[in-house]
Amino acid sequence: MQTAQLLVGLDVGGTKTAALLVNASGSVLGQATVPTRTATPDELLDSISQAIHLVLAQAQVTPPQIQRIGLGVPGQVDPATGIVHLAVNLNLQNYPLGPALSARFKAPTFLENDVRTAAIGALAHVRQREPVDSLAYVSIGTGLAAGVILNGRLHRGHNGLAGEIGHMIAESGGTLCNCGLHGCLETIVAGPAIVRQMAETEPETVVRHAGDVYQAAVLGNQAAQKIVQRVSQQLSRAIQWLVMTYDVEKIVLGGGVTQSGDAFLAPILQELACLRQQSTLAAALLPDEKVHLIPAGFNPGVWGAINLTKQTLSAPEKS
Amino acid sequence: MQTAQLLVGLDVGGTKTAALLVNASGSVLGQATVPTRTATPDELLDSISQAIHLVLAQAQVTPPQIQRIGLGVPGQVDPATGIVHLAVNLNLQNYPLGPALSARFKAPTFLENDVRTAAIGALAHVRQREPVDSLAYVSIGTGLAAGVILNGRLHRGHNGLAGEIGHMIAESGGTLCNCGLHGCLETIVAGPAIVRQMAETEPETVVRHAGDVYQAAVLGNQAAQKIVQRVSQQLSRAIQWLVMTYDVEKIVLGGGVTQSGDAFLAPILQELACLRQQSTLAAALLPDEKVHLIPAGFNPGVWGAINLTKQTLSAPEKS
Repeated sequence: MQTAQLLVGLDVGGTKTAALLVNASGSVLGQATVPTRTATPDELLDSISQAIHLVLAQAQVTPPQIQRIGLGVPGQVDPATGIVHLAVNLNLQNYPLGPALSARFKAPTFLENDVRTAAIGALAHVRQREPVDSLAYVSIGTGLAAGVILNGRLHRGHNGLAGEIGHMIAESGGTLCNCGLHGCLETIVAGPAIVRQMAETEPETVVRHAGDVYQAAVLGNQAAQKIVQRVSQQLSRAIQWLVMTYDVEKIVLGGGVTQSGDAFLAPILQELACLRQQSTLAAALLPDEKVHLIPAGFNPGVWGAINLTKQTLSAPEKS
Repeated sequence: MQTAQLLVGLDVGGTKTAALLVNASGSVLGQATVPTRTATPDELLDSISQAIHLVLAQAQVTPPQIQRIGLGVPGQVDPATGIVHLAVNLNLQNYPLGPALSARFKAPTFLENDVRTAAIGALAHVRQREPVDSLAYVSIGTGLAAGVILNGRLHRGHNGLAGEIGHMIAESGGTLCNCGLHGCLETIVAGPAIVRQMAETEPETVVRHAGDVYQAAVLGNQAAQKIVQRVSQQLSRAIQWLVMTYDVEKIVLGGGVTQSGDAFLAPILQELACLRQQSTLAAALLPDEKVHLIPAGFNPGVWGAINLTKQTLSAPEKS
């Protein structure tokens, strides 16, 4: 009988769940994506289990060979107990997702908020090229949030809400946010906000997601160009805010909106270049090398989940 | 001969230097303030020494009884070496202030940036009432900066620039800041900015410092009231920013501008109450108890400097 030494990493999203299977030396043995079913906690567990069984089948191994499972969950979680306090998109409230998954697969499960999990994955990614101890991973998708690594460890904050930068007020009296406040950063730069601004400016142009707006901008649509400029200015400001508050070594950008690649990144770098021209402080703190875009082929969520199981980063921050 | 067990704390400002002498149990034996002389490093050392000799005289003790000296310096410093890299207001550049003071008094000297030192003092102050492990001390005076405590320790950041919130861009295309950027938070809420706004709005009213504007507002001057409202809105937003990024337990406000006391604090609390009404997230994260004003009689700078010497907080953050 083979020793159990395989690690499973899961990125559980509101619509799909990605899974990764690696061996002790970090080689990929399987990867899969399945739709997330959220009608009941049991159905959710079934869809997560389906993803796990798929990657096991790819590697021709069986559940007993799983040593540990890590997963990132979009919501408020308690890593110490494995309880998901609130995950609206997964239809979970105060549910012991970690223990339930551990019971199904007879393996310890480590869970964390999805953006924080991705921050751990982003750290691993950046560390392949240079030694880095601090970064903010900014996830720009349906919402906007940051996972913050300080001194090589996650910074969760007193209420586990550190990095909720989507709700930093960017514009007095701006658009009403889901949170109730007006002018939150999220109402300008998140995916749905980008789509909304295009619909408001040019209702005749049909856009389904932020990528359409970036593409239209590249193709010369002036309304789209204005929106991209506004979004890029606010994102460059968010980067500046994170650097001035945390003084982290890297800002890593990821999430759905960043999938427009260069069309997304170039105007942000342009804004940062403007700031550098104006100020020696900005020149010192905001070089282009500070900002890193997660490449299309890398999923920081599943790799972060793998690293969660190693417990080097997910240890509670209180010493 | 008596054992050396007295601690000296110093807050070295651009115009005056405050000193505090305490014994091992923390009782105050002397306190003094002298003008800071900055023509040469030697003159600076002389004025610091004068402050120390004054508090020693008050306690009728001699230099050999000093066990340790702590000091907060307005500029970029290296706590490990005691070198002041740059302190414009003290006319120092790459000067070994710590070693020079140690040599004069034959006692180890511990030094740190002044706002960070005050943050340590603020922590001690808040801890007299409740156990707290994280806070941001926001100094609102000639400039604006924050000293951040996470997990009971100073967070300095990768370049020692964490908490430079005065240069977070608050207003696109706003007033030109000393740093070269436009619309930095400091150009709206720092003391000189408050005075400038009054001079711009109502040149016939003579104001010398921010306190005059707060007083005019209380007495019904409408221009002053508008400025106070704008400043308070931006400060409440800065508080919200710090809470959304760091998720600290307390925001402690100190520095010259806060000396207007209730006239300063009440409109900020009003703004926060507005945010709470709008949003359950804000209601959870921004209760009135979160914000603490340093009382007039307490100097967090000298107390922080005393605590620096105890090295529980000033240890390098890298573990």
